[in-house]
Amino acid sequence: MAHILPSALESAIEELGRLPGVGIRTAERYAYFLLRTEKRTSDKLANVISELHDKVKNCPITFALIDSDQDVSPLYTDPDRDKKLVAVVEEPLDIVALERTGQFKGTYHVLGGAISPIDGVGPDQLHIPELIKRLTEDKVSELIIATNASVEGESTALFLQRLVNDSGIKVKMTRLARGLPAGVDLEYADQITLTHALAGRRLI
Amino acid sequence: MAHILPSALESAIEELGRLPGVGIRTAERYAYFLLRTEKRTSDKLANVISELHDKVKNCPITFALIDSDQDVSPLYTDPDRDKKLVAVVEEPLDIVALERTGQFKGTYHVLGGAISPIDGVGPDQLHIPELIKRLTEDKVSELIIATNASVEGESTALFLQRLVNDSGIKVKMTRLARGLPAGVDLEYADQITLTHALAGRRLI
Repeated sequence: MAHILPSALESAIEELGRLPGVGIRTAERYAYFLLRTEKRTSDKLANVISELHDKVKNCPITFALIDSDQDVSPLYTDPDRDKKLVAVVEEPLDIVALERTGQFKGTYHVLGGAISPIDGVGPDQLHIPELIKRLTEDKVSELIIATNASVEGESTALFLQRLVNDSGIKVKMTRLARGLPAGVDLEYADQITLTHALAGRRLI
Repeated sequence: MAHILPSALESAIEELGRLPGVGIRTAERYAYFLLRTEKRTSDKLANVISELHDKVKNCPITFALIDSDQDVSPLYTDPDRDKKLVAVVEEPLDIVALERTGQFKGTYHVLGGAISPIDGVGPDQLHIPELIKRLTEDKVSELIIATNASVEGESTALFLQRLVNDSGIKVKMTRLARGLPAGVDLEYADQITLTHALAGRRLI
């Protein structure tokens, strides 16, 4: 297959193919689009990608992603947000998902993943000591464990629950509700989801 | 939604969202991947994208994509390939698809699109005069019209057929076979595909 495409295009296809979930056909489509589009557009993309690492860092308190020239996440320093209410999430983008609801006015704590022995991720690799520190420093009254509804997310929630209980710190701990997602027919819901929906049923 | 993500990450999401078929969630995933991956990997991607326009050009004879420092497509100059047999395709990546079959040993001619009045693409925007020129210069004996099996591809094939006939140039013109794609059950084949498969049935 050598020499069918110019080497610069082959390189672009190869590098674009490293993006998550991108196979060769999609990478070809992206590369060809970038070649056909105005040079200004492809230069802009090249530019923002090359700046990404230098212009983004982690907040030292919440571990959310922040601008390099910021000290602390604005979602933490915002006086309108309740520091006593902390949502614990696995990854920085989980904050975006929760913010989209417009329903949460507390602060966040990013663990940086979930406990997963199979991937070699133990509690030591997560920002758990910093979370425990915040519990007393910010006099946290409620900790919402908003980890994923996966095995790893559940294990992490359980671990945090035990750790906080053992520490003797008094704090209400909650977990996001499990149940039917919006717009889903009962007959298509899986067994585990239905089990959770039944167990968590509410008075109307 | 301001200030949830660092501005450099927002910019990366915005620019990645310009790629074809990429929505906001996918763009977020790509941007976050690029942030989490080694700087070397994201720099390499930024680099190949920024070089794309300068290092790739069109072959002046076949309009295939070639390296900027090449004069003519190696698929044209290759002495093992038959210049008298020309496959006419819409886009440069169609060449990759045909080369993957390993069955074609002729040369290519890229039209640069298909006739589409709705998109304002007429015959004048396509590399048709250059194709007519090749017919006599290369003494082409067979022209395989390998345009897409779409309305635009069919219109373009019909246009080329009439144009070549009217020009008085003697050349055999063929079209890629239409019929059942590999691995498809008859009951799932659409009506048009089945109609073509019936009309093009072959003696066994």
